Amino acid sequence: MSEIPYKIYLNEKEMPKAWYNVRADMKNKPAPLLNPQTLKPMTADELEAVFCSELVNQELDNTNAYTEIPAEILDFYKMYRPSPLIRAYFLENELKTPAKIYYKFEGNNTSGSHKLNSAIAQAYYAKKQGLKGVTTETGAGQWGTALSMACGFFGLDCRVYMVKCSYEQKPFRREVMRTYGASVTPSPSDTTQVGRKILAEHPNTSGSLGCAISEAVEAAINTDGYRYVLGSVLNQVMLHQSVIGLESKIALEKYGIKPDIIIGCAGGGSNLGGLIAPFMGEKLRGEADYRFIAVEPASCPSLTRGKFAYDYCDTGMVCPLSKMYTLGAEFMPSANHAGGLRYHGMSPILSQLYHDNLMEAVSADQTSVFEAAVKFARVEGTLPAPESSHAIKAAIDEALKCKETGEAKTILFGLTGTGYFDMYAYQKYNDRQMTDYIPTDAELQESLSRLPKVD
Amino acid sequence: MSEIPYKIYLNEKEMPKAWYNVRADMKNKPAPLLNPQTLKPMTADELEAVFCSELVNQELDNTNAYTEIPAEILDFYKMYRPSPLIRAYFLENELKTPAKIYYKFEGNNTSGSHKLNSAIAQAYYAKKQGLKGVTTETGAGQWGTALSMACGFFGLDCRVYMVKCSYEQKPFRREVMRTYGASVTPSPSDTTQVGRKILAEHPNTSGSLGCAISEAVEAAINTDGYRYVLGSVLNQVMLHQSVIGLESKIALEKYGIKPDIIIGCAGGGSNLGGLIAPFMGEKLRGEADYRFIAVEPASCPSLTRGKFAYDYCDTGMVCPLSKMYTLGAEFMPSANHAGGLRYHGMSPILSQLYHDNLMEAVSADQTSVFEAAVKFARVEGTLPAPESSHAIKAAIDEALKCKETGEAKTILFGLTGTGYFDMYAYQKYNDRQMTDYIPTDAELQESLSRLPKVD
Repeated sequence: MSEIPYKIYLNEKEMPKAWYNVRADMKNKPAPLLNPQTLKPMTADELEAVFCSELVNQELDNTNAYTEIPAEILDFYKMYRPSPLIRAYFLENELKTPAKIYYKFEGNNTSGSHKLNSAIAQAYYAKKQGLKGVTTETGAGQWGTALSMACGFFGLDCRVYMVKCSYEQKPFRREVMRTYGASVTPSPSDTTQVGRKILAEHPNTSGSLGCAISEAVEAAINTDGYRYVLGSVLNQVMLHQSVIGLESKIALEKYGIKPDIIIGCAGGGSNLGGLIAPFMGEKLRGEADYRFIAVEPASCPSLTRGKFAYDYCDTGMVCPLSKMYTLGAEFMPSANHAGGLRYHGMSPILSQLYHDNLMEAVSADQTSVFEAAVKFARVEGTLPAPESSHAIKAAIDEALKCKETGEAKTILFGLTGTGYFDMYAYQKYNDRQMTDYIPTDAELQESLSRLPKVD
Repeated sequence: MSEIPYKIYLNEKEMPKAWYNVRADMKNKPAPLLNPQTLKPMTADELEAVFCSELVNQELDNTNAYTEIPAEILDFYKMYRPSPLIRAYFLENELKTPAKIYYKFEGNNTSGSHKLNSAIAQAYYAKKQGLKGVTTETGAGQWGTALSMACGFFGLDCRVYMVKCSYEQKPFRREVMRTYGASVTPSPSDTTQVGRKILAEHPNTSGSLGCAISEAVEAAINTDGYRYVLGSVLNQVMLHQSVIGLESKIALEKYGIKPDIIIGCAGGGSNLGGLIAPFMGEKLRGEADYRFIAVEPASCPSLTRGKFAYDYCDTGMVCPLSKMYTLGAEFMPSANHAGGLRYHGMSPILSQLYHDNLMEAVSADQTSVFEAAVKFARVEGTLPAPESSHAIKAAIDEALKCKETGEAKTILFGLTGTGYFDMYAYQKYNDRQMTDYIPTDAELQESLSRLPKVD
């Protein structure tokens, strides 16, 4: 083995002390959120009915490049961070590629993913504001678990609306959340107006992320001392998740390594946005160049087949509108085990960067993603989450291209989490019962035809 | 926070290069294994019908203190080792204790436990011997998962006999093993003579570890190119697991820390034996003194209520006899979610050390163990395995004693793994449906009355 260790850990003193806000360096800023009634940009006051005040400031801040990480959050980060940057020696050997592959592994914590990076920040600001609790939704369950852990730590109430099919298929995720003190409600539920309406119209629905968001927002607005928190899409989340990219960059620089290609899976964009942030900053400032690749599931291809337009963030249309790549708020991805990549839209920041040709996007079929996942697990040890495995698939593809061309490119990808709670999906794959689903053009046109009209 | 970081990671160059064999320093060596037919000490030749040759050498080696770790195993270790030594600052604050608490966390790998340390060694020696595959049993599933990962890595066949109740209650564990290429059979099964016999006598049995061992041994003996491997109890396993203690000691010494009390949960003894090994060596050589505490479940109390005697290692009585603390090979622990701590016996090495008063032992009720587990999870982040939580419980008890006396003792405990596949048990606890079970004296006497007669 080479001089570069298998795992590069930063010591605590090397850990980033501030989050990086890529918007500060973007020439074309992401478009503002719009009030769903007036279609005018949301004011801070309007947003504060839903979100914690400090998080509203972060959401609207397009200019400050750095935000100091509060000491309490830095301490919590020390529980599970710095996360390791791993040189995939075994995968390189398996592929017989001249490429050098690195991955930033965010799964070494009980939430099993990078979601804890933003959960602890959001819980901290809620606590600091003197709130009693927060509400949220969760799809695959990583975000709900992360938020439960963060709220358990600060002694905040945590109410999670969990997409019904996940609630039923992942009882263990639910139990982890309960163990950390959260209450978990399957969505749609009869505890909210929007839930009751959806249940009346679609009594057999197994729920969707968009619908669970609507319920969580309604519950927050109607409960004294509560606010709503969200684990992806929002600008504030990209800010907190920048810790992934910042740590990666410090670790690589310690060994004089500069990546050529940076790859991340993309659902709402929280991991990808965080991983690429400081590298994208360099690119925006003209200091360095990188290829960035977003990988999304072929079953929910917002970047590769969606439209860049204002759309609702939720099915119930109670949330602000966001300008983003979207498949339409009513788009329902069919059976797809990559639970965390089922959202109809994409982070406004990433959408803008993609629109400005600063980033590429590809989509991958579920079965080929699981094939890559199993290959990876057997040589690198870690059983990856289905979501993360989209990035593995694209990284392997790029490494195999290097094998053809003989180029020794340096590839960095984000391994966002572990698949320990996704064994139903692995079982389907192991039993060769997994199928692919790709929406037809007609389906997408139908869904996109109902985008709101905004000038 | 103090100068000592939250997590102490060794760098790769600091990792141990040799395993430590505590038997070399024991005045009273563990008693030899006996042939179940002749009741004479097992010869190397006899053992090689069951175990890989190199592992037989390690099993019988009572004199060499150090065994070099082969380069291939060192490389594999770099995937998930060194494991972090964590200062439990948050737990100390929660308990308001002057004690300084450290834990060695072995759960940051897909097997979710320390079992991988020996699995990769055993798979390596099997591969080196040119074998086709190995058989084993698994109870809670950690060992089976670890062995599947190790065999997947070296391209060895892996046949796992999984205790039937675990097979049914933990389908996800089964799927992880299958994902790494193992075949998994619920035990007792009709694939072995001993399995068929047990099924005929107890058609509704939900299986036991002792029974699964018998099946795995029979399958190995009857299949060309196969050997049997075991994840605990054996001397060879203690040897491999010494890497836990060796890393802990190096990490502590880097910061000039000397533990006063070292605590580990004890089922078959693999984690405890590994954690304490180098510290016990110092104590045996008169170089230092430590208190060692084994923590076992009150439902399966081999050290605290068993007998130090020769006994069968398995229900089917096909395995050698071992001199150890035992509850009797036919002892069946009742419903107990700490799946990994259900074995009727204890490592001969640890049994001898306990018999010689070099180590203490305590037992803990299941509900108080889960109470400690949840407290730990909420402040330290990691959701612990039920097995590991026995050590947490004892560590908290010792820390609270320090609070009473005002002593700032240094406590080191082994956090062997994560509880992600144990959510049925947590659910029972969360729903307040968990009960304790402690065998009566009459039950134990009945079981112990059937110990084999060996002079």
